[in-house]
Amino acid sequence: MNKTTLLELLAQVQSGTLTPTAATERLANLPYEDLGHARIDHHRSLRTGLPEVIYAQNKSPEQTTEIFTRMAASGIDVLATRVDASTALRVTAALPTAIYNQQARTITLRQTSPGDPKGHIAILTAGTSDQPVAEEAAVTAELFNTRVTRLYDVGVAGLHRLLDVRDQLAEADVVIVCAGMEGALPSVVGGLVGVPVIAVPTSVGYGASFDGAAALLGMLNSCSPNVTVVNIDNGFGAAYTAVLIARAASARG
Amino acid sequence: MNKTTLLELLAQVQSGTLTPTAATERLANLPYEDLGHARIDHHRSLRTGLPEVIYAQNKSPEQTTEIFTRMAASGIDVLATRVDASTALRVTAALPTAIYNQQARTITLRQTSPGDPKGHIAILTAGTSDQPVAEEAAVTAELFNTRVTRLYDVGVAGLHRLLDVRDQLAEADVVIVCAGMEGALPSVVGGLVGVPVIAVPTSVGYGASFDGAAALLGMLNSCSPNVTVVNIDNGFGAAYTAVLIARAASARG
Amino acid sequence: MNKTTLLELLAQVQSGTLTPTAATERLANLPYEDLGHARIDHHRSLRTGLPEVIYAQNKSPEQTTEIFTRMAASGIDVLATRVDASTALRVTAALPTAIYNQQARTITLRQTSPGDPKGHIAILTAGTSDQPVAEEAAVTAELFNTRVTRLYDVGVAGLHRLLDVRDQLAEADVVIVCAGMEGALPSVVGGLVGVPVIAVPTSVGYGASFDGAAALLGMLNSCSPNVTVVNIDNGFGAAYTAVLIARAASARG
Amino acid sequence: MNKTTLLELLAQVQSGTLTPTAATERLANLPYEDLGHARIDHHRSLRTGLPEVIYAQNKSPEQTTEIFTRMAASGIDVLATRVDASTALRVTAALPTAIYNQQARTITLRQTSPGDPKGHIAILTAGTSDQPVAEEAAVTAELFNTRVTRLYDVGVAGLHRLLDVRDQLAEADVVIVCAGMEGALPSVVGGLVGVPVIAVPTSVGYGASFDGAAALLGMLNSCSPNVTVVNIDNGFGAAYTAVLIARAASARG
Amino acid sequence: MNKTTLLELLAQVQSGTLTPTAATERLANLPYEDLGHARIDHHRSLRTGLPEVIYAQNKSPEQTTEIFTRMAASGIDVLATRVDASTALRVTAALPTAIYNQQARTITLRQTSPGDPKGHIAILTAGTSDQPVAEEAAVTAELFNTRVTRLYDVGVAGLHRLLDVRDQLAEADVVIVCAGMEGALPSVVGGLVGVPVIAVPTSVGYGASFDGAAALLGMLNSCSPNVTVVNIDNGFGAAYTAVLIARAASARG
Amino acid sequence: MNKTTLLELLAQVQSGTLTPTAATERLANLPYEDLGHARIDHHRSLRTGLPEVIYAQNKSPEQTTEIFTRMAASGIDVLATRVDASTALRVTAALPTAIYNQQARTITLRQTSPGDPKGHIAILTAGTSDQPVAEEAAVTAELFNTRVTRLYDVGVAGLHRLLDVRDQLAEADVVIVCAGMEGALPSVVGGLVGVPVIAVPTSVGYGASFDGAAALLGMLNSCSPNVTVVNIDNGFGAAYTAVLIARAASARG
Amino acid sequence: MNKTTLLELLAQVQSGTLTPTAATERLANLPYEDLGHARIDHHRSLRTGLPEVIYAQNKSPEQTTEIFTRMAASGIDVLATRVDASTALRVTAALPTAIYNQQARTITLRQTSPGDPKGHIAILTAGTSDQPVAEEAAVTAELFNTRVTRLYDVGVAGLHRLLDVRDQLAEADVVIVCAGMEGALPSVVGGLVGVPVIAVPTSVGYGASFDGAAALLGMLNSCSPNVTVVNIDNGFGAAYTAVLIARAASARG
Amino acid sequence: MNKTTLLELLAQVQSGTLTPTAATERLANLPYEDLGHARIDHHRSLRTGLPEVIYAQNKSPEQTTEIFTRMAASGIDVLATRVDASTALRVTAALPTAIYNQQARTITLRQTSPGDPKGHIAILTAGTSDQPVAEEAAVTAELFNTRVTRLYDVGVAGLHRLLDVRDQLAEADVVIVCAGMEGALPSVVGGLVGVPVIAVPTSVGYGASFDGAAALLGMLNSCSPNVTVVNIDNGFGAAYTAVLIARAASARG
Repeated sequence: MNKTTLLELLAQVQSGTLTPTAATERLANLPYEDLGHARIDHHRSLRTGLPEVIYAQNKSPEQTTEIFTRMAASGIDVLATRVDASTALRVTAALPTAIYNQQARTITLRQTSPGDPKGHIAILTAGTSDQPVAEEAAVTAELFNTRVTRLYDVGVAGLHRLLDVRDQLAEADVVIVCAGMEGALPSVVGGLVGVPVIAVPTSVGYGASFDGAAALLGMLNSCSPNVTVVNIDNGFGAAYTAVLIARAASARG
Repeated sequence: MNKTTLLELLAQVQSGTLTPTAATERLANLPYEDLGHARIDHHRSLRTGLPEVIYAQNKSPEQTTEIFTRMAASGIDVLATRVDASTALRVTAALPTAIYNQQARTITLRQTSPGDPKGHIAILTAGTSDQPVAEEAAVTAELFNTRVTRLYDVGVAGLHRLLDVRDQLAEADVVIVCAGMEGALPSVVGGLVGVPVIAVPTSVGYGASFDGAAALLGMLNSCSPNVTVVNIDNGFGAAYTAVLIARAASARG
Repeated sequence: MNKTTLLELLAQVQSGTLTPTAATERLANLPYEDLGHARIDHHRSLRTGLPEVIYAQNKSPEQTTEIFTRMAASGIDVLATRVDASTALRVTAALPTAIYNQQARTITLRQTSPGDPKGHIAILTAGTSDQPVAEEAAVTAELFNTRVTRLYDVGVAGLHRLLDVRDQLAEADVVIVCAGMEGALPSVVGGLVGVPVIAVPTSVGYGASFDGAAALLGMLNSCSPNVTVVNIDNGFGAAYTAVLIARAASARG
Repeated sequence: MNKTTLLELLAQVQSGTLTPTAATERLANLPYEDLGHARIDHHRSLRTGLPEVIYAQNKSPEQTTEIFTRMAASGIDVLATRVDASTALRVTAALPTAIYNQQARTITLRQTSPGDPKGHIAILTAGTSDQPVAEEAAVTAELFNTRVTRLYDVGVAGLHRLLDVRDQLAEADVVIVCAGMEGALPSVVGGLVGVPVIAVPTSVGYGASFDGAAALLGMLNSCSPNVTVVNIDNGFGAAYTAVLIARAASARG
Repeated sequence: MNKTTLLELLAQVQSGTLTPTAATERLANLPYEDLGHARIDHHRSLRTGLPEVIYAQNKSPEQTTEIFTRMAASGIDVLATRVDASTALRVTAALPTAIYNQQARTITLRQTSPGDPKGHIAILTAGTSDQPVAEEAAVTAELFNTRVTRLYDVGVAGLHRLLDVRDQLAEADVVIVCAGMEGALPSVVGGLVGVPVIAVPTSVGYGASFDGAAALLGMLNSCSPNVTVVNIDNGFGAAYTAVLIARAASARG
Repeated sequence: MNKTTLLELLAQVQSGTLTPTAATERLANLPYEDLGHARIDHHRSLRTGLPEVIYAQNKSPEQTTEIFTRMAASGIDVLATRVDASTALRVTAALPTAIYNQQARTITLRQTSPGDPKGHIAILTAGTSDQPVAEEAAVTAELFNTRVTRLYDVGVAGLHRLLDVRDQLAEADVVIVCAGMEGALPSVVGGLVGVPVIAVPTSVGYGASFDGAAALLGMLNSCSPNVTVVNIDNGFGAAYTAVLIARAASARG
Repeated sequence: MNKTTLLELLAQVQSGTLTPTAATERLANLPYEDLGHARIDHHRSLRTGLPEVIYAQNKSPEQTTEIFTRMAASGIDVLATRVDASTALRVTAALPTAIYNQQARTITLRQTSPGDPKGHIAILTAGTSDQPVAEEAAVTAELFNTRVTRLYDVGVAGLHRLLDVRDQLAEADVVIVCAGMEGALPSVVGGLVGVPVIAVPTSVGYGASFDGAAALLGMLNSCSPNVTVVNIDNGFGAAYTAVLIARAASARG
Repeated sequence: MNKTTLLELLAQVQSGTLTPTAATERLANLPYEDLGHARIDHHRSLRTGLPEVIYAQNKSPEQTTEIFTRMAASGIDVLATRVDASTALRVTAALPTAIYNQQARTITLRQTSPGDPKGHIAILTAGTSDQPVAEEAAVTAELFNTRVTRLYDVGVAGLHRLLDVRDQLAEADVVIVCAGMEGALPSVVGGLVGVPVIAVPTSVGYGASFDGAAALLGMLNSCSPNVTVVNIDNGFGAAYTAVLIARAASARG
């Protein structure tokens, strides 16, 4: 559904040709756009108020570019994750205002004017190497219009580094913790804060880390009950849920 | 810290013997009660406003009873999870107002007067067999003073059962989904709602379910970005985080 | 066994030199062609009425080309799967009428004149990234002379996409479902149709997908009893069995 | 939906109050019966023409008995699988015509008069110990009105035992193979027949069989392309799909 | 080799009948005592100055009793680990001065007069449930004549509990940390102390703890470089190595 | 096939009624005895000259007894492995000359008069707890008429115990090594001898031994090239192959 | 130890300067050659009568070349396995008579004059792709002076291919079976022959073959008792043990 | 904290401006240096007397160079591990006195004047291929000012090689054993020495070594109680703990 279609529909509502109820119905049931290889769900964005997102990893550069361009055409914000450099080149050539973040491996296209950020997310890393995953989360949360505080390299082997940022932690509505190796940081953070902690195991480590499986298991067995977990390296997913929580919380004050 | 100690402390504040700042400090640093085998953290309850919780599974009946009784002595609400029948007998003998829920395997002791419930959690199961885990979550959420809607046996193989409860789902601030076997339900529910979904894999299944590992992996790989995951059969943990989210959300209206 | 040999044999039957029983015996026991590294089983094709198939993945380009050429010499249809670009170049150079499908990684050589397609297979994918596996299945089924309906990108996180193709699903004699990540789609499809569903886990995903193992486990634990499973990324195997089922079913009308 | 409701509905069709199309619609959307812990889907049986099935393993004896009784009340055939002796006692006390098969761990209740069997399934076991799983499949297929040929203890270490039953194999429309340990039998059978083979890994074995995982992996990696696989010990699921295939095939003649 | 034999041998040395070199040779090569099922290595105790140890888990009560009695006969201290109640009854009946510790599942027999303890080990647990493993370590270290400080229930989710015992930690020559679930405690402790930390994963937990495997993996991936790891629940092994380290360290002052 | 049948057949050969070729044919194709649940292969014993063997673990006591009795009726030696006490009672009641070995969990029935033992097998264990597996191997080898030397409790942590039996090792035609825990013994033994070593991982151990998987992996990765491996606890299989090797070797002298 | 050294030593024995006993002692204890990174064990070759072997996989080309050259200097036969092309180039440059077999990835240097081959090994593959592993075994066995019969591409899905080589199988003293995917071939072969079968799982396959783990597990669980197993792709190890068995057997005639 | 800051602080102590207690406090709490991506903990080095260490594996060359340079600026010794060649080029360009060890993959910068080495570590490898891991340990221990004895290629398949270095082993205060494949060496060494053994599994091996997991499991299950384990290929961690032990032990004399 492109913007024109949407505006025409809204015009019909304004003119009384279409009742609001009927319009809602049509919006909720508007057929997605069928590209053959992908079915773009334009009204999800309208329904949730969140940008469209493309997971680029197993798609060809051509597929990603086509989907991104179609989504952009509807005038909303667009995010692509897991984008390699060659795909990024192709997408930004097609859409020069789209921005590629090499560390986060994201392309973002901001087309709307968000107001003030809603809610506040603290994003922690145990070590420097967890930063790409944390940045994927941060870029996502910021495009989704949420305030982000980055607190990096505060792993548990040097506890004073974590204790020093305790005040900053206390201000967040929700905390994302990215950690590889033993994945112990979410449990410790979970004990320090009274808000939900979303744990992101990273594939940082070697040997018996089994590409992040050790960290994943550690986080699932956390003794802090306010910890939930997402897939290994899934910075985007952590941010998505964190945004939902932060928005709810931000309405409190 | 028992109630008397707390009151004396507050009296000192009232009389000006102690400044509020100093009192806050003391409360935050009050030594836990050391039972030798366990260190009870009384002020966690004061700090978070949530009941005290005992995980009884690997404790002896004597240990559970002693910890439960000490916690109860401070006048707050107490919850024990993973309680077998013989431990339950011993605890309820010591505290006759405590209630044992055999299916949920919980003991609850309500000693405070909560006001109206804050927030609303929908709890779903894929099948009848997932019910004990769902009930652990429900009992927890209710003791934590949150409204719970139970929507059981709505697994994906009979999609109309799920679609029929779509309206009830839409009212919840957060959704808990308990499922064993292939663990597909959270992904489907995640696509239907715009709020966080907490997925609880259950150990229901046989053969290649590997005691819930298949469901766990399925949920971690969910294609719905609003899904986060807790440990297998961890109904309590899911409820704990859900309560935090529901409380935040409930302040919106 | 090349065609000439076959014809001579049949001529002997016609002329009465050989009884039909004896001919059958000889056909069933005709020695395969021994290439040293491979023993080609020519009469399998005669027996089953299905094309010859080469699994090229662990073979050298030379080996694949030699086997393909020998099989082609007997005049029947030939299929090679898991063919990389350099092997494809070599085979198509030797046999210019053979067709390489880069996405499906197949080479097909049609040498017979099949009649009308027998039976009808619906092939579904959960996402765009599952398409190569689905195409391997589709190319196989079409060479085996079965009608194929492609229904791609209908994953469970956007349920309306699947429900929209429900009518098309209902017409199939058998359904192949290709899905990575959590592998939930076969269970949902299994609940919607009354025919066998063959589930193909794909290696699409990351982290705890463990290269398709998560999807595989999910499918094996499906709560829909009409779901059976093949190896990860095994589009060919799914199509082979689906063809057998579709042929049986097609005789019903 | 009980029989009365169904008859009233059909009466309305007869009298012209309801068109056949509308009736079909209502049948397909009739609400299931909600028991609190389970939602019985009565019209599945009407839609598929197959009996209702209860998976009893993770249900309490009370739950199984209640669901079985409700299903039986609608006048159709009912099957319960994974039934232990104490649950069986309770169900058969309530429904004296129900039959408990101790080896297969099934309860069957035949209430309809099926005509001649449709289709033909051969069920093989590698060893004596695989028999309970094979019997679960056989009981299921027979209640679903399909002809069953049992060919037990024909494992690959004594190949002549298998070759001796080759003629019986050749008559089947579909073959179910139950095997534990190395799970090699389905591959060998797959090479001998031209129909679909459904492989059921069993938990028979010790040590590195890892409760059937070795057999499962072996079957998933079968070099015979007509083999698909179900979960470990899932005799019921194998039979369910086999019945669908056999019915289709039986219409050929 | 019992004490008498040893003294006779030493007497021969004193009297010149045997050279010191020859005596050393004989001591080093003295045949162990062959019980048929076990070969007791008496001179290990002489060589290392540490008690004899029996791992009782996979032995029959008769075997354990026989080995324990033979070892005791040589006059040295004896330890048996993993002793169940019925075996304990039999051993203590034979040797009334032997002591059974039910929680630690050890039997100890003190027959020598050790001097002052050498070295100092701190033993920590994350939770109450890890205590049996910690006690196995403590009993071992104490029989081996090392000072033990028990610091139990100081898991990372309540960091203040751990920080409160920091002074006691600082006095130890080596630290043993027993933790199940996510196994995060050794990393945090490793960052707080400047001595070796021996991590003991415990089988405490459920679901994705996989009987201690999650804790084990976490500890192996510790970001603190002074952490080494022993097998799940191996309190004895941790204590054995800790004793060796503590003895070395105790000589410093 | 019992002995009488065999003799009659041979009589026919002698009298010229049957040619040797035809007799061979009949022997090779004699139908096994079909008990419904099991197909006994009587002529395997005739062909290999080895006793009949029953794996009793997953069979009912009735099944084991029936198969054992039928086998015994043909006059040959019979072995049953993995026999529990109650099954043993039933079998030995039916066949009073059969002997139950409780530690090895075997029943043996000697009905032939073997000549001198052929070949020589050394059987080693790393510890006392590996003895049941070693005894299963020893009982098997002895019934199969091979000389056995038992060398128990010679694990690698006390190397002198192993070096002391080096001379006995050197006399064997083949060595079986049973070890649990880290499974290191076969590698060390493999370096000491010039004959094949068959490694049997045992399920002795705890925690990260994962029921023998650690020992199994260790043995498969042995750096000694004369080591081959059988399944965990498979003393029988090790002995079976060892007997074949020892017989071949014994013919050398 | 080179040949000259050996002859000098033997000359001393002949002349009476050295007793045979003393010479034996010196031979058994001759220091290996210490290259810093490797300790070459020259007298192993003398003791076993088998060539020296280098496992090149984790060694640098320089290391492999140095070790190979030193071994060659002692005048015996030398074998290197897992040799990549660049290492081969370097070794054969240094030793022009050494032969590189690219498929088997071996370098062989024949410097002795072996007599007639001793014993007979049949080497089977399930498919064409297993050939490199089989060739590693064949090259090894042939250098070790054993007769080899290659029987390739006889997998179980086309049973007639295997049955056709039954006569050739029957002549072997020992059989090596190389198979990937489901690894079923050793069980079937084990049932056809009366000699030891050494199973080599290969890493041929995809998806749930897990790089050969599925085949490995299948072979370990073989229902044929004459099957033992080596590591995945370990053609060399299989041949080494097979040679020992074949030599013993060859002395029978 | 650079040296100047430190000296100024100490000057204040000398002049009486700052008490020793206050200075200690400030040293222990000095803020680390925050580089955005990393928080350098300068006073750890002061506190422990050990060099600063950078784990370079998951860091960009730029990050590693920046952190290394900052650490070097404080005048202490610096070590970087897991450094690839391109990173090494960049670091040594910035700091020409830093030394890159290609085999160990370390960069070391010696800026202090250590006195005599404290303590003595023996480092063993099972084979030539384990050398890189052993060298990482050796380089670490030497920079940390400990005496190192390298004993390489002494694997258990050739026991005499190990027994020959027994005297050198006996002199060490602690032993590090690096081994891949079956990982048996630590158990054997553990039985030969009376000091702690730190086992380092290496990723050397193939097939069922699963990249070092087999060796890791073997070592965790060691029957020698003086063995503790670190992560696969973690030479640095082994050396770090070994240094702590050796220092303690060295003070004994």
